Amino acid sequence: MSISHQSVRAILSGLDASRESREELYRHFHRNPELSLQEHETSARIRKELVDAGIDVTAVGDTGLVAVIENGEGPVVAMRADIDGLPIREDSGKDYSSTATQTDPRSGEQSPVSHTCGHDFHIMNLLGALQAFSSHRDAWSGTYVGVFQPAEETAEGARDMVDKGVDTLMPKPDVYLGQHVLASLPGGVLGTRVGPTLSTAASIRVVLHGNGSHGSMPHLGVDPVVLASSIVVRLQSIVSREIAPGETAVVTVGSIRSGSKSNVIPSTAELLINTRAFDADVSEHLHEAIERIIRAECDAARCPKEPEFTYYDRYPLTDNDEEPTLAVRAAFEDYFGADCVTDLAQVPASEDFSVIPDELGVPYTYWGLGGFADRENAPGNHNPGFAPDLQPTLDRGLEGAVVAAAAWLATEK
Amino acid sequence: MSISHQSVRAILSGLDASRESREELYRHFHRNPELSLQEHETSARIRKELVDAGIDVTAVGDTGLVAVIENGEGPVVAMRADIDGLPIREDSGKDYSSTATQTDPRSGEQSPVSHTCGHDFHIMNLLGALQAFSSHRDAWSGTYVGVFQPAEETAEGARDMVDKGVDTLMPKPDVYLGQHVLASLPGGVLGTRVGPTLSTAASIRVVLHGNGSHGSMPHLGVDPVVLASSIVVRLQSIVSREIAPGETAVVTVGSIRSGSKSNVIPSTAELLINTRAFDADVSEHLHEAIERIIRAECDAARCPKEPEFTYYDRYPLTDNDEEPTLAVRAAFEDYFGADCVTDLAQVPASEDFSVIPDELGVPYTYWGLGGFADRENAPGNHNPGFAPDLQPTLDRGLEGAVVAAAAWLATEK
Amino acid sequence: MSISHQSVRAILSGLDASRESREELYRHFHRNPELSLQEHETSARIRKELVDAGIDVTAVGDTGLVAVIENGEGPVVAMRADIDGLPIREDSGKDYSSTATQTDPRSGEQSPVSHTCGHDFHIMNLLGALQAFSSHRDAWSGTYVGVFQPAEETAEGARDMVDKGVDTLMPKPDVYLGQHVLASLPGGVLGTRVGPTLSTAASIRVVLHGNGSHGSMPHLGVDPVVLASSIVVRLQSIVSREIAPGETAVVTVGSIRSGSKSNVIPSTAELLINTRAFDADVSEHLHEAIERIIRAECDAARCPKEPEFTYYDRYPLTDNDEEPTLAVRAAFEDYFGADCVTDLAQVPASEDFSVIPDELGVPYTYWGLGGFADRENAPGNHNPGFAPDLQPTLDRGLEGAVVAAAAWLATEK
Amino acid sequence: MSISHQSVRAILSGLDASRESREELYRHFHRNPELSLQEHETSARIRKELVDAGIDVTAVGDTGLVAVIENGEGPVVAMRADIDGLPIREDSGKDYSSTATQTDPRSGEQSPVSHTCGHDFHIMNLLGALQAFSSHRDAWSGTYVGVFQPAEETAEGARDMVDKGVDTLMPKPDVYLGQHVLASLPGGVLGTRVGPTLSTAASIRVVLHGNGSHGSMPHLGVDPVVLASSIVVRLQSIVSREIAPGETAVVTVGSIRSGSKSNVIPSTAELLINTRAFDADVSEHLHEAIERIIRAECDAARCPKEPEFTYYDRYPLTDNDEEPTLAVRAAFEDYFGADCVTDLAQVPASEDFSVIPDELGVPYTYWGLGGFADRENAPGNHNPGFAPDLQPTLDRGLEGAVVAAAAWLATEK
Repeated sequence: MSISHQSVRAILSGLDASRESREELYRHFHRNPELSLQEHETSARIRKELVDAGIDVTAVGDTGLVAVIENGEGPVVAMRADIDGLPIREDSGKDYSSTATQTDPRSGEQSPVSHTCGHDFHIMNLLGALQAFSSHRDAWSGTYVGVFQPAEETAEGARDMVDKGVDTLMPKPDVYLGQHVLASLPGGVLGTRVGPTLSTAASIRVVLHGNGSHGSMPHLGVDPVVLASSIVVRLQSIVSREIAPGETAVVTVGSIRSGSKSNVIPSTAELLINTRAFDADVSEHLHEAIERIIRAECDAARCPKEPEFTYYDRYPLTDNDEEPTLAVRAAFEDYFGADCVTDLAQVPASEDFSVIPDELGVPYTYWGLGGFADRENAPGNHNPGFAPDLQPTLDRGLEGAVVAAAAWLATEK
Repeated sequence: MSISHQSVRAILSGLDASRESREELYRHFHRNPELSLQEHETSARIRKELVDAGIDVTAVGDTGLVAVIENGEGPVVAMRADIDGLPIREDSGKDYSSTATQTDPRSGEQSPVSHTCGHDFHIMNLLGALQAFSSHRDAWSGTYVGVFQPAEETAEGARDMVDKGVDTLMPKPDVYLGQHVLASLPGGVLGTRVGPTLSTAASIRVVLHGNGSHGSMPHLGVDPVVLASSIVVRLQSIVSREIAPGETAVVTVGSIRSGSKSNVIPSTAELLINTRAFDADVSEHLHEAIERIIRAECDAARCPKEPEFTYYDRYPLTDNDEEPTLAVRAAFEDYFGADCVTDLAQVPASEDFSVIPDELGVPYTYWGLGGFADRENAPGNHNPGFAPDLQPTLDRGLEGAVVAAAAWLATEK
Repeated sequence: MSISHQSVRAILSGLDASRESREELYRHFHRNPELSLQEHETSARIRKELVDAGIDVTAVGDTGLVAVIENGEGPVVAMRADIDGLPIREDSGKDYSSTATQTDPRSGEQSPVSHTCGHDFHIMNLLGALQAFSSHRDAWSGTYVGVFQPAEETAEGARDMVDKGVDTLMPKPDVYLGQHVLASLPGGVLGTRVGPTLSTAASIRVVLHGNGSHGSMPHLGVDPVVLASSIVVRLQSIVSREIAPGETAVVTVGSIRSGSKSNVIPSTAELLINTRAFDADVSEHLHEAIERIIRAECDAARCPKEPEFTYYDRYPLTDNDEEPTLAVRAAFEDYFGADCVTDLAQVPASEDFSVIPDELGVPYTYWGLGGFADRENAPGNHNPGFAPDLQPTLDRGLEGAVVAAAAWLATEK
Repeated sequence: MSISHQSVRAILSGLDASRESREELYRHFHRNPELSLQEHETSARIRKELVDAGIDVTAVGDTGLVAVIENGEGPVVAMRADIDGLPIREDSGKDYSSTATQTDPRSGEQSPVSHTCGHDFHIMNLLGALQAFSSHRDAWSGTYVGVFQPAEETAEGARDMVDKGVDTLMPKPDVYLGQHVLASLPGGVLGTRVGPTLSTAASIRVVLHGNGSHGSMPHLGVDPVVLASSIVVRLQSIVSREIAPGETAVVTVGSIRSGSKSNVIPSTAELLINTRAFDADVSEHLHEAIERIIRAECDAARCPKEPEFTYYDRYPLTDNDEEPTLAVRAAFEDYFGADCVTDLAQVPASEDFSVIPDELGVPYTYWGLGGFADRENAPGNHNPGFAPDLQPTLDRGLEGAVVAAAAWLATEK
């Protein structure tokens, strides 16, 4: 596989002319973020931009969109952009900062909203790439598909698009691409990685059933505070003893809650547990071990009722396939030069990016784009101060999207 | 010491005549309970009854009262009645049930109120005894003092009376008496005990300072959930290893709270701990051990900040002196017969009764009165259903108060 | 029930005359202790003394003996003396100290032996009482039975006598008596107690099956060190949470052993656990809870094999019946005067004394005899320095045995 | 850097002719293993072989040797062979199995000895390389140094050679090489790795001081069984919470020992702890955390005395330098072909190989050589069955040693 610089340059030839309007549109999205599965205005505006550019677009669910450009024989390349914001009050100091609020459907309460994970860039990159491929059809051949996915932050959006039949609404791709703006890479630099790249993640709500009693009569109850505490302590041995020392695995109990008065032994306790792994078997082992230990500790405590486990926010492993990753890497090095490309380290975060390609049985690769010239002081993703440099991030993001897809689509010239 | 039946009978001679009005007044207090240190109407009504009976009465603090009847040479006997209600919605099914509500000064919120600990009986018993002693001065000699104490339920009232100078507002007693209606004794039966009778109690709010982090990066934080859990587990060894097997000691962690999301390691954790003991040294040991273990566990966890300890609701030991207890016991057996008197087992609850006599350096005794004919099905003190049988509880309570004091005051005839 | 001083004085009339030979025989037993179930010479000498006195004696098992004196109509009173020594090297400084050694059948090794629990006194007391009752048949009426029991120290002897049919070898007693020389009572003073007096005790050997591995590869094994430690920590919650605060209960893990090298995860761990309680239900609860917690922790750890529990050294509760205890107490106060009698506190030790009367369905009482004038510096039972003052202990022990039995047997004169 | 096949082939030209005598000598060393720092016969035989070959050899300590071949201008290349056996009874089924025994100076007891870690191959490889370089001086230029190091298995030998002045007894090398026969690589295949390759390791003996007591009186003691168990449980949180999830770290408590009887609370407990890491900072953190937690738990338990820490068997990190590793890798691929070379995974074991180059400030690389054609069934190093295939291991080991050094020394032809 090789790339024709000439074709890519042709596809990207409108970059300078569109810069001002793209920056304006970026600021618009930045100022108008919407919460997961509430991205109605965002979705409508993307659709309008695509329709204006003469590109076919189909709704998938309430806020998801699929855009397809068919352009003769050749591979089908799909790229995904996630489009939702976060319930975080932005504190970036930018003059285009978000001050938006929205009713959070999870809590029913009014919440600040912001694009503190950079999904506004992702929208712009994919919109720009679609417009570029649409405007320069003589420089490539095949089919280019844009997937605008809602609700990445709640691990619901990709699953929702699958449930709504995304596979029937677009041609089956040969490869599925994703790009994320990150604080951990040098500004403007693209980072690729073969293999496990983002961890699995899952959350578990555990309800433990003890037996209430007056604080002075512990023998008449089953103390859920001692039970929950024993469980938390015992769970530490999963990572320390059950997982191979070279494996990455995390079991965090982020919340423990039981009781409200000093002198009353409560009836129940609740734990919120989060797991991470870079291997699906390890992830499964973590969950088996958590349930095993909790059930056994409930037996030890003579609980009157079984513990309850509710899984939520489950993210699959993002495990980049070797072939497309190396192809994208080669295309980046060829087009941008080796200085603009680097190895991406494993990211201790999770994505639902792989849900759709895994469902479709399609190879994928997901890479990072550095968003900050001053990386030392860059606030991390999800930090209230997270707002990448507008440029070169905006241009490089569009270029990255085009160059990667062109590895399959560009015409040799 | 011996008792003249004739004198006691004389003092109690108005029992039948006053029964109807006493029952009416009891129902009044039952329907109009007031929260701790908010007993304004209760206090005013007691004062009115005393003044109507021609008895000297002095306010101590906002709602406390001391009534004194001087009647020639002889011992000074004081008896205490606690007068506050509880923030509990009564569910006793009585036609005189409380439906009262009041602003709880602790929470600032409206709260149901009820006499589900029986303090309305205590008011009536002491009022009745004062009226009886006042009306039959020829049958006894000495001084009888009634102490109407607020806020027993919050461990504040006796301390408040001491702070307000109760010692200067009454003659120094030779003995200090207390009587409590209980569900654990047979109906109408009086129970006495020498030595430790009600436990010490104290509550401790502990704030632990960890260091927050993302759930996937535990090494960047200090996990307060694991810390708090380790502490709860480690605290179990105080009772199991540090306290003599024959001693009674309780360390209950009634509440543990840290964090609210599965994937965020919180910064702090809070424990609410309650202790009980029947020996002041044991109580001190419990507190020393709790602080020692918590400080050490914070060191083990490399906490960035010392833990904070706030003690509240501290109750002293109720440790009945032998001499007055045996005197009261003998008087009861003599007057009511052995069938109406029994040994009181240690009560796994606490009182601030001993605060005043300990402050004054006066011996004391505190006994129980059974409130339910159907003891099998009797709801315990503080239970929403707790409402003792009106009779014989009301009469026997008054009689008990008089017979006990008469052990020191009655004239031999 | 009352006692005739005159009869008792008659029965004890040989005390002065026999003192020298009794002291000599005591020193003989003291110098020649024998280990549990190895008391061959001790048993032979007791038999010889009894035969010489014309008393019927029957062997029960290898070293147990039952002596019966029938003397007309009347109650049957049995008294027990335990006769075994301890595998302890005496260090009392007495000129009649034991320097004996014997092969310990438990270990197969040579062991020092001594009477550091005072059973030599018990032999002498019962022998002396039998001789006294035998010599003065006109002063009493009924049947006196002496039970010389082996192996109290290993909890085997009373059970062995039951297994060997002790019930068929003696008349069924109306009461069963026991007396023990103690360091905790004033010298020469007798202490009685109604109700639970010595605790239950049991030992449990627990073998835990993990899975060995190299220390650098914990995930390939099941770490029994972490398992055993988790169990020990979790067991603390039995006493702290499952037993009523007023109950006495002890769970001690006296030994934990697993592994021998730092870098090898061993396959097994062993715990030696000891329990104590003053109530048979509490004792049962302890054992149920220990097994429940250990089994559950093995489940939590995914052990390849069930844990193994072996109970040993099981002692029942010594729970003195009220009637015989009060009878003995009254007899002691009557004969020795109130200054020589006191209340015995609960003893944190255990006995197999109650095995035989429980088997026979006979009420019993077991009291203590103080052995040291200088109680402050008295070494406790089982201490290498334990050797009670020869006198008045030897005389008072014999007197105590006779006076107690005489409460049932003495003729009113 | 490049390699002349012709020169290397010249240096290795005697391979076929020497094979029979080399195999014979290998079997001799295999049958005559000696324990660490007891390698007297082994060292003497190596010295004899070197002297016979006309090579300069110097003793370093009792059993270490340094052989130096100076051959004109050029780099100085040192290679190390470890020469000690293990206290393991060989069970390989080979007809040349070891049946040797030797007094183990650590235990004072007679021990079986065997080369179940393959150090006999290492001796042969280095001897053969020295003979080859010595016999073909026209094909290379520079200095070749052979370091025969005792006591690798006890982490004492390299440190001992440094202490005995190894730096003054050989010219300072430009690079330091090591090769180890492994069961984890395909037979005859060489495996290289840049960066951390073998972990740090350290063992710690911890003595905890509690306070003994009778098992029924825990409050009079400080229970070291509960203390030691609490420590083991608490140590699990180091790996689970304090170390970055992507780091490799192991804390194994391989042994816990306290007490010997169920009913006696012992005075002390002993833990044997082993740590592993692939980063020196992580290793330091583990030790800091272990000491911190243990000291804090001793405070929590109110120990009468500080815990004691004794470190032993400390192994440094083997952290291959990039430049020499890539040079050796290139030389291997060039000479043997890519099929005979692979990436070595991190080895969960430790070495004292790096002690000497670290002391000298010299870059180093350490690679593996597969020893078994049937890798599936190959017993691991230190397994009683470990005995690599005689061939091609013996030839390939010698070739590997020569080819690697020739990367610096071979003359271009």
